[in-house]
Amino acid sequence: MSELRKDPIVDRWVIIATERGKRPMDYKEIIEEKKTQACPLCEGNEKQTPPEIIAYREPGTAKDTPGWWVRIVPNKFPALKIEGELFQRQHGIYHSMNGIGAHEVIVESTSHVSGMDAQTEKQVEEVVWAWRDRSLDLRKDARLKYIQIFKNTGSAAGASLEHTHSQLIATPIVPVDVRMEIEGMKEYADRHGSCVICDMVMQEIDERVRIVVESEHFLVINPFASRFPFETWIIPKKHQHDFGQINEEQVRDLASVLKSVFGKMTIMIKNMPYNMVLHTSPVNLQEERHYHWHLEIMPRLTLIAGFELASGYYINPTPPEMASQALREIQEIYPLQERIMTGVSTYV
Amino acid sequence: MSELRKDPIVDRWVIIATERGKRPMDYKEIIEEKKTQACPLCEGNEKQTPPEIIAYREPGTAKDTPGWWVRIVPNKFPALKIEGELFQRQHGIYHSMNGIGAHEVIVESTSHVSGMDAQTEKQVEEVVWAWRDRSLDLRKDARLKYIQIFKNTGSAAGASLEHTHSQLIATPIVPVDVRMEIEGMKEYADRHGSCVICDMVMQEIDERVRIVVESEHFLVINPFASRFPFETWIIPKKHQHDFGQINEEQVRDLASVLKSVFGKMTIMIKNMPYNMVLHTSPVNLQEERHYHWHLEIMPRLTLIAGFELASGYYINPTPPEMASQALREIQEIYPLQERIMTGVSTYV
Repeated sequence: MSELRKDPIVDRWVIIATERGKRPMDYKEIIEEKKTQACPLCEGNEKQTPPEIIAYREPGTAKDTPGWWVRIVPNKFPALKIEGELFQRQHGIYHSMNGIGAHEVIVESTSHVSGMDAQTEKQVEEVVWAWRDRSLDLRKDARLKYIQIFKNTGSAAGASLEHTHSQLIATPIVPVDVRMEIEGMKEYADRHGSCVICDMVMQEIDERVRIVVESEHFLVINPFASRFPFETWIIPKKHQHDFGQINEEQVRDLASVLKSVFGKMTIMIKNMPYNMVLHTSPVNLQEERHYHWHLEIMPRLTLIAGFELASGYYINPTPPEMASQALREIQEIYPLQERIMTGVSTYV
Repeated sequence: MSELRKDPIVDRWVIIATERGKRPMDYKEIIEEKKTQACPLCEGNEKQTPPEIIAYREPGTAKDTPGWWVRIVPNKFPALKIEGELFQRQHGIYHSMNGIGAHEVIVESTSHVSGMDAQTEKQVEEVVWAWRDRSLDLRKDARLKYIQIFKNTGSAAGASLEHTHSQLIATPIVPVDVRMEIEGMKEYADRHGSCVICDMVMQEIDERVRIVVESEHFLVINPFASRFPFETWIIPKKHQHDFGQINEEQVRDLASVLKSVFGKMTIMIKNMPYNMVLHTSPVNLQEERHYHWHLEIMPRLTLIAGFELASGYYINPTPPEMASQALREIQEIYPLQERIMTGVSTYV
């Protein structure tokens, strides 16, 4: 029989639908149409993007030329822009603001690979530093209240470019889903005197049925109330409300964990489309020390349809316990170098 | 410049992204792959579905045989089931229930058409009656707290069958999105002494920039904070919290409005994939007279990606004012009979 499960943080229920049961092995490789145009994110094509905001590059190399290893550029079609003054407008019952904010693209590699599993750990580390650095830099703009870092991979997940990249949208308001999480965490702390995510980490380590990987600083689980098949959270084991406070040791560990998780996912389902989102505490507001930052990876193997849009609830045909067993059992079989070579295409 | 707009009911902001601006005419026909298997929802194939729950049928015709015009069957792969006793479980920090509820399919036509625009008004009326009748019948089960009626059309909207149908999922809990709407409506009423949706109807009739169609009993608008291009709401002009209270005159009018709206959408973008959801007040709980029921049509021309999943906010490249101008200007050019004939394929 199906089961209704409540997310322990927010008031979101998911239906683990056994009648529609799909075991991990029932999912097939996803076929992605090969793009044929030149890739604007590849090394050598720097002029095809808007001028870079910042890049980690060899000393002496010029802006918007090769010599970088991580490069951050404004989105070519930005949803929000940093220029101008923020003003609000009330017209009858309607409330609006002009589109102040930031919308950036973090190019995660010089070569045309599609994911973190095809990168070296060192390179993934550099990407995590880039996320942190942008997060620390943008919060200097007092108008911005939230810095949302996310990654779309695969066309079903809304990616229009194949080349591995993440994005950042900074908004002058705290998104409703983050606010609901903050409220959920506060309520839990009021009732139990502890952090719900810290307690989740403890219970998961204790039960060992939803763990994918455990490292020194991070626990990777398929959460109890997974909305999506293979939904995966990467959680710092130590309470830390602000991703901006991540230290060097954690960055190194997170890079290794990210590489390992995406390695497992690629072996599980080739070209698995996914969204990854970083949930952290707001900026330029009263500090939210209740918050516990984490990464959520949401594979897009099921469609978000009318029921989900109507209710905010999700139907997930694959129990997380099954997903994590399958992911746990995957050994990363390819030696590193081979994985890198497979990932690199001769595309541009 | 882009604009951030707040939904007047819930705390949901959308980014109307002018840099990504897509005018209504920029959207192209959607190509749907023709299904080749026999359709289990067509007249004559009644044995291919689970036994019918109820059908509107000619007197003297037998259950699960032809002679019906609207037919309601259990979903073959139900997310929830009516049988059994509802029990809750708390395990550490996790809370769950067994999957009690209902999951039904409303077959809206005997013939293999894909939408309401290809039906007669009389037939659409019968579908609206079916929604009402199921809603009234299922609330007799005191365990059920919400009856969610929705319709997925097109593969991008999660429809696995082409044949026009809607679905119903009844849950033992009130979905979070409905609860947020109820709270939003209550707060507004506390502050202003009036219903936010009634006020929205007044302001929209006054301004006439987001109206698609207006009939005696319904106002059809592209809402101010549209999440999706061509998002369309059908709102009863008179305050009514419970869809189950719809009367004969309203049913007739709603059928005509639905046919007209989908007629316009089909002319605008052939095979437009969409989800339609009915938002109404919960059942078997304290009456929510603040609520104002309405239908939301969400075309699926853009993808829900990382930013939307992370924040609960949406990026919409097409301002609703542009969408409604385009939809308003469409005259329903095909005579009824021709539309019906075009819609009917010789499929099975």
